[in-house]
Amino acid sequence: MNQRKKQPRQTRLALVEAAGAEFARHGYAGTSLGAIVARSALTKGALFHHFPDKQTLAAAWIDESLAATLAARWITPLAELASLDALRALYRAQCLELQPGDDTSALVALTAETAAADPVLGAALERIFAGWRTAVAGLLERGKFAGWIHRSIQPAGEAAMLVAAIAGFSVTTRGQSDDAIRRTCATALEGYLETLRAP
Amino acid sequence: MNQRKKQPRQTRLALVEAAGAEFARHGYAGTSLGAIVARSALTKGALFHHFPDKQTLAAAWIDESLAATLAARWITPLAELASLDALRALYRAQCLELQPGDDTSALVALTAETAAADPVLGAALERIFAGWRTAVAGLLERGKFAGWIHRSIQPAGEAAMLVAAIAGFSVTTRGQSDDAIRRTCATALEGYLETLRAP
Repeated sequence: MNQRKKQPRQTRLALVEAAGAEFARHGYAGTSLGAIVARSALTKGALFHHFPDKQTLAAAWIDESLAATLAARWITPLAELASLDALRALYRAQCLELQPGDDTSALVALTAETAAADPVLGAALERIFAGWRTAVAGLLERGKFAGWIHRSIQPAGEAAMLVAAIAGFSVTTRGQSDDAIRRTCATALEGYLETLRAP
Repeated sequence: MNQRKKQPRQTRLALVEAAGAEFARHGYAGTSLGAIVARSALTKGALFHHFPDKQTLAAAWIDESLAATLAARWITPLAELASLDALRALYRAQCLELQPGDDTSALVALTAETAAADPVLGAALERIFAGWRTAVAGLLERGKFAGWIHRSIQPAGEAAMLVAAIAGFSVTTRGQSDDAIRRTCATALEGYLETLRAP
């Protein structure tokens, strides 16, 4: 514990990661500060030293951790894509990997649970969704310019559709452990992406 | 209270409706039996007379109430449709009406929150999603037969895509009270539906 006290950044990070693991598994209301403390192997005193309440801790997790893991999965790889086939392959692979308790599922579940009632968390979660939509729209815009996306496509609208569909897939796959539903979702997504192709 | 005691069906219904209103607003973990009792203006004794625990009450609400309101909004009207334009108009109108705390939002939020951890609730919620996908696939099959849906369309896959997108829209619109996001979602959905049209 002494060592932890000397490393406030590391303590803070441990609390944020423990909180995220609990939120992803049990939701916001279903997570107690006691459970977070227990998972972090720290003390409630350490928690309250860094965060006044659960909301602040959740907002820190969303901004500092969830945003980065979501970006690594769905956003950053878009920068390297130069064809519709590459986008299809990337997002198909990601859909096949959707699992209850993963970062995508946590984003969607936390938004569904808290965004309407808690403007602070809602805004933090919406920033992730907005960044995701902006990145997809940017890629489609690039694709139009490069000639592999149909020139009649409206990037912002298609990005909204694509991100919503993936969010919905993460809900649909949540209760089902078999892979058939993931393959159906991935194939449906590919069929949709195919409609964006330039002739 | 005496009158209620004489009408067990009405008491049960009042409890189910009160539970649903709380679940829709506060989620599953965020709802206490005390809050349900308070909303119903009944007693905890009455609640435990009808339901042994929160899970049973939630399952009853999903099967007996949420399934019907979801069907009335998204499924039953499909039976009367005879053109892609009619489907576009119906689902556009429904998307524009998506609100935090409504039945669609409750279905998605409860699924996101509970389906992975609670197989009983997960199965009850998945039955609603499955019925919805089956109804959409049936309509698309009819549309292929009647010649207003493209004959290369795979109804099951497109139904999975469509239902997932609407579920995702209900998450996306949850944190945002302005109507711009609803219009973006509705327009994106219409653009997607247009790709199913027979030439």
